[in-house]
Amino acid sequence: MSAARREARAFAPGSVGNVGVGFDVLGHSIAGIGDIATVRRIDEPTVRINAIRGTVTDLPLEAERNTAGGALIALREALALSFGFELELDKGIPLGSGLGGSAASCVAALVAANALLDAPLSPHALYPHALAGEAVASGGRHGDNVGPMLLGGLVLATADRLTKIDVPAGWHAAVVHPHAVLETRRAREALAGAYALKEFVAQSANLAQVLLGCERGDASLVRAGLSDVLVEPRRAPLIAGFAEVKQAALDSGAMGASISGAGPSVFAWCEDEATARRAGASMAAAFANAGFASDLHLTPINGTAAEVLA
Amino acid sequence: MSAARREARAFAPGSVGNVGVGFDVLGHSIAGIGDIATVRRIDEPTVRINAIRGTVTDLPLEAERNTAGGALIALREALALSFGFELELDKGIPLGSGLGGSAASCVAALVAANALLDAPLSPHALYPHALAGEAVASGGRHGDNVGPMLLGGLVLATADRLTKIDVPAGWHAAVVHPHAVLETRRAREALAGAYALKEFVAQSANLAQVLLGCERGDASLVRAGLSDVLVEPRRAPLIAGFAEVKQAALDSGAMGASISGAGPSVFAWCEDEATARRAGASMAAAFANAGFASDLHLTPINGTAAEVLA
Repeated sequence: MSAARREARAFAPGSVGNVGVGFDVLGHSIAGIGDIATVRRIDEPTVRINAIRGTVTDLPLEAERNTAGGALIALREALALSFGFELELDKGIPLGSGLGGSAASCVAALVAANALLDAPLSPHALYPHALAGEAVASGGRHGDNVGPMLLGGLVLATADRLTKIDVPAGWHAAVVHPHAVLETRRAREALAGAYALKEFVAQSANLAQVLLGCERGDASLVRAGLSDVLVEPRRAPLIAGFAEVKQAALDSGAMGASISGAGPSVFAWCEDEATARRAGASMAAAFANAGFASDLHLTPINGTAAEVLA
Repeated sequence: MSAARREARAFAPGSVGNVGVGFDVLGHSIAGIGDIATVRRIDEPTVRINAIRGTVTDLPLEAERNTAGGALIALREALALSFGFELELDKGIPLGSGLGGSAASCVAALVAANALLDAPLSPHALYPHALAGEAVASGGRHGDNVGPMLLGGLVLATADRLTKIDVPAGWHAAVVHPHAVLETRRAREALAGAYALKEFVAQSANLAQVLLGCERGDASLVRAGLSDVLVEPRRAPLIAGFAEVKQAALDSGAMGASISGAGPSVFAWCEDEATARRAGASMAAAFANAGFASDLHLTPINGTAAEVLA
């Protein structure tokens, strides 16, 4: 039995949660941005956070109040580990952006810690611990951000299972992040109240068409379905310029566009990278018209998963 | 240009509407039961119903108050036909059974009339007229019964489009019809009121798993998803013995079971015909314990479509 590694670093990408039609259950990873966690195995039976650097520095260092710490606590308890972890986070994703920032720290920490186990787990087996970590930030167990980070690409994340959805390799997303913060709590409050059954009928038809369109590589099904009639109407008023940004994406040939996660970032799905680049530029211009600078991220929808760094 | 036929007969099968997780948008045909329409092309620019025979005889003969008549009126108007139709219906599906009885008459009449057109339409092109006919009975435009009858098998029926879902050929449904009538109106009333967002999240995750499971032939995904958490809890109290009937199906190895259409029929999905036969017998026994005789229909989930009879 070889001695386990004492330290590992891992990267977890950003993600587009909800993907418009799959509130709390559907998401895809965003290549090129993400958080890095450095985890060390320690003899004390505890989890501690030594440092948080990067785009966010005012997060709690108490492990149980941090998504990364919460996930490692859950992992330790589930596996009854005799040892503990200390970790440092290098955050690349701004919080309150709708790009999966809290989930990325959680998944990066889990994937790094997993590399230090005597018998590492599969990404699927890490999922419940990622849910436990994500719940520290959101108060609820939803896997639409951590799921895609663990498996890569587009993922259906149900209560106890992750299912990767096939997506044509050429399909790309433009994800535009305006320099404005929308607190997840406020975005959640916009969803309070009652819903009508007919809203759900329309949304479920849309979700079904998007899933079938992805699996079959049929863009016409995605175009028919990629429209959020349930959540977007309630959250759009919180995002300055949203209607114009969405229209800019559609005018550029996108298959559909909606809010990424809880916002304010907006994503557009396109059939190729050139269209995504064009749509992204138009969306950024629309945000500029509304008074906001923004960052553009281009990613294959079938994007990368979290990984241990050499 | 050859002279068009003057008379045609067509058969439309029954259907399992909703399939539990796809309220108003998902359904599959039931082989072996159905309605037959005999349609004659007439010179007068009108639609009239001459006779209704079979399991139901007290339906209105006024064309505009009957689903079959309503569909032919819609077809005439859309195509600006100079001629009219007269029709006779032989009903094989009881109304108020949850087996798509009103939809079957509508689709059988349309398919027969279509054979009398100088330029017959595709099943997809007949869909809007079938929706118009179905609306005569239900007051709403939902295609989860007419869609599967037009295309055969399992069909996603959205507002303006039908998409057939792949299903493994061996998968079968047991559909048990207790000898009790549940008025669609009463079944709809049970759904009045407000819904919580978390109900939608759970149901949409289930729908997604069922669709992916069918397309991939992955029974474990169907088992994980085939559970109606939205509508079934509200309608089950209207069906005597429902809980026991459902449990009997699951105990027999079914992948899942729920209410067919608006009920009171109950369906169970199984991985092969032998399991469906066993599940159906257990379900019928459970209905008998509740005091109801019943009929059992076994069908491939990828069942037959409506067709013109020789």
